Amino acid sequence: MSAMRMSEGVEWAIHCCSFLASLPEGETLTGASLAEFFDVPRAYLLKHLQALGRAGILESTSGPRGGYRLGRRPADISLLDIVEVIEGGQPAFRCSEIRGRGPSAVDASEYSLVCGIAAAMWQAEEAWRAALAATTLADIGRMGSREVPRRQRELAREWMEHTIAARRR
Amino acid sequence: MSAMRMSEGVEWAIHCCSFLASLPEGETLTGASLAEFFDVPRAYLLKHLQALGRAGILESTSGPRGGYRLGRRPADISLLDIVEVIEGGQPAFRCSEIRGRGPSAVDASEYSLVCGIAAAMWQAEEAWRAALAATTLADIGRMGSREVPRRQRELAREWMEHTIAARRR
Repeated sequence: MSAMRMSEGVEWAIHCCSFLASLPEGETLTGASLAEFFDVPRAYLLKHLQALGRAGILESTSGPRGGYRLGRRPADISLLDIVEVIEGGQPAFRCSEIRGRGPSAVDASEYSLVCGIAAAMWQAEEAWRAALAATTLADIGRMGSREVPRRQRELAREWMEHTIAARRR
Repeated sequence: MSAMRMSEGVEWAIHCCSFLASLPEGETLTGASLAEFFDVPRAYLLKHLQALGRAGILESTSGPRGGYRLGRRPADISLLDIVEVIEGGQPAFRCSEIRGRGPSAVDASEYSLVCGIAAAMWQAEEAWRAALAATTLADIGRMGSREVPRRQRELAREWMEHTIAARRR
């Protein structure tokens, strides 16, 4: 059977935003640097970063030290904000109004209420969206301080410091 | 950007199961009849009906009056049961462990806890699954008695009576 699947761009985008949340004030990272850090295809990542920029989740600055940083405070960026940029806001369940087909169909004007099946499916998606909306990059940062291995956090900080310093030269 | 989308088979399967919930005791409908009633491609629908049968949601009987009926009471079949047959039970968010890539990666053995981002994404999916699990075909039937136009309910009942009677001849 089929399998509903989110784009891997969602994983990349959340990781990028979460990493940018740890940038020192006033600093940025280029899309190329982010692609290097996460070892993901640069062109594909840039497309997602640009979309996050258009949505105001990221801010891009130009010039020799230009790059990406968060467009809002981590506590003001939810997982839903990021998922909607990458996946769009359309529901996963699409109602094709099969009520209006076959031998029991009536005139389209008689379907004043949304199909109960679609309503129930969309209500369940609302529960998913509400949970994503309730989790922010600030929450993810707090989880990361427990769940990311200490050595990885040290290596990430070193890489970030080195990358920022290299652009100053 | 991409867009996560459920198979249209989910819509068909829920409508079929919901319709079968209104069958008189001891009666069945063939896959061909269900495809006619919903005006959907027969071969594709049969594939879904067979999968629902293997999962015990439908029961198929053989013989000249054989066909499909519900395998359990409507109150014991949830939307999640049906969605999982068509879409499978895998989460929509797939974690590719990007923590383990790039310059900050540490040895795989150090990742004892699930990535916080994946954990948050899966927790949101659990909210969706819980909502689907809490809605049964009995609930859908109660909604239908309000939301389906009266004339459609009459036409559906007539079609069902006619189809059942035709198999007796």
